[in-house]
Amino acid sequence: MKTQVCIIGAGPAGLLLGHLLKAEGVDCVVLEQRDPDYVLGRIRAGVLENITVSLMERLGLDARLKAEGLPEDGFNLADGERLIRIPIRELTGQQVWVYGQTEITKDLMDAAPERGLEVIYEAEGVALHDVDSDAPYVTYTKDGAQQRVDCRFIAGCDGYHGPSRQAVPASVGQVFERVYPFGWLGILADVPPCNHELIYANHERGFALASMRSHTRSRYYVDVALTEKLEDWPDERLWDELAIRLGPDAAANMTRGPAIEKSIAPLRSFVFTPMRHGSLLLCGDAAHIVPPTGAKGLNLAASDVHYASAALVAYFKGGDADAVAGYSAKALARVWQCERFSWQLTKLMHRFPEDGPFERAMQVAELDYIAGSRAAQLVIAENYVGLPV
Amino acid sequence: MKTQVCIIGAGPAGLLLGHLLKAEGVDCVVLEQRDPDYVLGRIRAGVLENITVSLMERLGLDARLKAEGLPEDGFNLADGERLIRIPIRELTGQQVWVYGQTEITKDLMDAAPERGLEVIYEAEGVALHDVDSDAPYVTYTKDGAQQRVDCRFIAGCDGYHGPSRQAVPASVGQVFERVYPFGWLGILADVPPCNHELIYANHERGFALASMRSHTRSRYYVDVALTEKLEDWPDERLWDELAIRLGPDAAANMTRGPAIEKSIAPLRSFVFTPMRHGSLLLCGDAAHIVPPTGAKGLNLAASDVHYASAALVAYFKGGDADAVAGYSAKALARVWQCERFSWQLTKLMHRFPEDGPFERAMQVAELDYIAGSRAAQLVIAENYVGLPV
Repeated sequence: MKTQVCIIGAGPAGLLLGHLLKAEGVDCVVLEQRDPDYVLGRIRAGVLENITVSLMERLGLDARLKAEGLPEDGFNLADGERLIRIPIRELTGQQVWVYGQTEITKDLMDAAPERGLEVIYEAEGVALHDVDSDAPYVTYTKDGAQQRVDCRFIAGCDGYHGPSRQAVPASVGQVFERVYPFGWLGILADVPPCNHELIYANHERGFALASMRSHTRSRYYVDVALTEKLEDWPDERLWDELAIRLGPDAAANMTRGPAIEKSIAPLRSFVFTPMRHGSLLLCGDAAHIVPPTGAKGLNLAASDVHYASAALVAYFKGGDADAVAGYSAKALARVWQCERFSWQLTKLMHRFPEDGPFERAMQVAELDYIAGSRAAQLVIAENYVGLPV
Repeated sequence: MKTQVCIIGAGPAGLLLGHLLKAEGVDCVVLEQRDPDYVLGRIRAGVLENITVSLMERLGLDARLKAEGLPEDGFNLADGERLIRIPIRELTGQQVWVYGQTEITKDLMDAAPERGLEVIYEAEGVALHDVDSDAPYVTYTKDGAQQRVDCRFIAGCDGYHGPSRQAVPASVGQVFERVYPFGWLGILADVPPCNHELIYANHERGFALASMRSHTRSRYYVDVALTEKLEDWPDERLWDELAIRLGPDAAANMTRGPAIEKSIAPLRSFVFTPMRHGSLLLCGDAAHIVPPTGAKGLNLAASDVHYASAALVAYFKGGDADAVAGYSAKALARVWQCERFSWQLTKLMHRFPEDGPFERAMQVAELDYIAGSRAAQLVIAENYVGLPV
């Protein structure tokens, strides 16, 4: 098979990029090692920034998002008894949308056939070749047969564990990483949320997040030591812990229910540079991971795709031979800002085992400051809704 | 001797408090273990916030400050080649004043006799007694003779090493502390400053600060490992290092000259709580230390004195028996904010030995963000000029 851009990975980054290229008349194909149900079964974030919503709008795929998504005007930081509301709309004029990443993926997946976006699922053993050259190719196995896609560019949208990043020579790539000493234990349940806006809580027993996917589906988290095991957290224990950490008001409004999904995810800050090498462009988790605090992961993938699609369209349609060369610098400028915000919000809202009384006093002072300073609230709000692309 | 308030320490905090109490008709005496020349010889900070200037204005002791001090509309953060200006006046409507702490002390010292503020210098072996009671007293030795001051309150303005803080029982006091892995090597020289506004620089070789006391007197710093010795830093080596760390523009305008003073000071964040115990009130360095980044030390002492004088005047003149009880909470609220800002600015502008590539990338991202966000600049500016008292 021959195409202009071979996209590896049919998560939201890969599908979004595929649709954007197709819409501009750039030929592409998407390879995915899993089947559609597996892809849709991955529970991820659920807060969309303007960049993500605007890409769905540009594609005309925002109807369900607008019908079922929940626009949010603010969110909350809790510290013991205190609830500090960040009025993001009042401060920035912008909202965010609560809409599951899974729903975005589904909307993009459903629209693929009618728009002629070819997605090849269960493509096994994907391997990248000659990414240093102008004629790279990708091989994979489908139904037992070896396949090959020749292309001009490869877009690696295959996540942290995918093969794309590994195709950049070790002599070129640089890794920036921070691992956190805890994970997030999450529960998804078909119960109404305890609050119509998110609550990030820094409690003496640890972090908690009250979040939602819709008016009838809630997503909650607590942080746990990395040594904790899922089987030690039956639903009732988790609900009890949430009730304590989120405080009496949230607890009083919390509806308990059986877990649809429950898992422990480690927290990590990770950036790989450059995000382009030769004819390979990396997008989303293939190049970077943020801790989930602040919900930047999907939105950052969307901003990568925004820059990558613009560069590829400029190359194929605008006759700009150098367009792709600037991709890494442009994408990384925003990546570093989101990494910074996610790291800072993580540090503010979690109790770190290595922190002493002084560091805790600094958390309290920062929360006091945020509670009383409009400038401090604006800093949080403008990062939360997403810095300009 | 009998007085209403016995003030221990004739640095700026003690003298300021003494003058403020005298002005309101509260009887007091100031005890200082050193002689006046020693006190004036201690080189400290030189940037005054509004709170400090306004207290000098209230006392009518601001004439020399206004005549010789330099009002500043902004300051700069340097990162390699880049200079990020924080336009504090444009953002907050406020200025800061460059005027040496030593000059403030001199103004307060010179005005003491005419205003009847008694300052007893060379008071040796100062000891506090019965601070738990309503009738505490202070003993000291002067010219070989044992002396005693009976009073209603003791104000401990005797710095980090003074006896006042030690008078709070260990069962009551709590220490919050962070020690930094470097010190500031400072040079004072009678040369014009390289820039009319301060420059804080985060260079790959380390921190540097270009500061001044007047149009003809400069104060520069570099950070050094705590193992460094002053004798290894002859003036020329220090000027060379400053020229590198401050960058080519500052270096081109830098005038070198012999050191009037040169010293290495360790950096420390330190808070002792409570700031009142019984009849003892702690002010300034006796209760807290900030790293010098951001120039909060003197200004924080001034805000303590503001709260302490208001409480003592309310007690003696307003008939408010409980006024002093609220001192610690009021003063600490502002202390924690200044501790937070000093700590954050220190972390932003220094290279910490324990930091890896990720942490350095976060510094760069924060500086990028500050360079581009008015909200981020306002947060720095409103802290730099001083949060409301």
